[in-house]
Amino acid sequence: MPAMTTGEARERFARARVAHLATIDESVRPHLVPVVFAVTGDTVSTADTVVFAVDHKPKRTAQLKRLANIRAHPEVCLLVDDYAEDWDLLWWARADGTATVLPPAETSTASARYVGLLSEKYGQQYADRPPAGPVVEIVVSRWSGWRAV
Amino acid sequence: MPAMTTGEARERFARARVAHLATIDESVRPHLVPVVFAVTGDTVSTADTVVFAVDHKPKRTAQLKRLANIRAHPEVCLLVDDYAEDWDLLWWARADGTATVLPPAETSTASARYVGLLSEKYGQQYADRPPAGPVVEIVVSRWSGWRAV
Repeated sequence: MPAMTTGEARERFARARVAHLATIDESVRPHLVPVVFAVTGDTVSTADTVVFAVDHKPKRTAQLKRLANIRAHPEVCLLVDDYAEDWDLLWWARADGTATVLPPAETSTASARYVGLLSEKYGQQYADRPPAGPVVEIVVSRWSGWRAV
Repeated sequence: MPAMTTGEARERFARARVAHLATIDESVRPHLVPVVFAVTGDTVSTADTVVFAVDHKPKRTAQLKRLANIRAHPEVCLLVDDYAEDWDLLWWARADGTATVLPPAETSTASARYVGLLSEKYGQQYADRPPAGPVVEIVVSRWSGWRAV
């Protein structure tokens, strides 16, 4: 049975190191970028949340398209997967949700908490330079997943 | 300079083994799946084309959402990337394009040619069981890419 349970999809997603974020732009075209992220389930609400932040990794422009897209169209989709030449090992996990752009950690306690989670997960890379830009909070409405066997 | 040239983005994209396909569904929500694919630049037109096929890997339903989405909304986005714990090694490459669903290879010479390209790239996995389902042809309107250094 190739479909994953919600719990398995959530668990595999949370363990991954990179996710692919799909947003929709103002021309109703899909847009994709990879993001480093954290999953938190212990928010004030009962919903799971995926968070990522604008960090120091070089960007092409300061006005990031991913943020403009989210502000105009908050429904997003995130995918993690693991490719292998043995296709019996293939799997993917997906989160559908609604995104909100929060202020940088410096001026938001929610953002500061999320940056803390990201720093915990990506220790080495974020320890010296915690992300200083806007933080995106995605409330997950559906986890789904697939594995070959 | 973190932006890639068109040529570098295309080359890195073509070499990757898996891509992430973003489509837009009938409720105008983004949808994501991983796909195995081939890039061809020697089509009758001068445009680059990304192709993938519906193959024998187990699916959750016969009526694939990725195909329904493309039929309703042909603009798609594809991303490849390579995660590394050393963020100086990060890069991604992206293709924006317009997708068309073609009939299975059995009844279409274009599809048969594309399945040939896929079988060449994924030899072992497709040699015994070439993809028998519909084939998707994406005419690329823009290659773009980013690398950390």
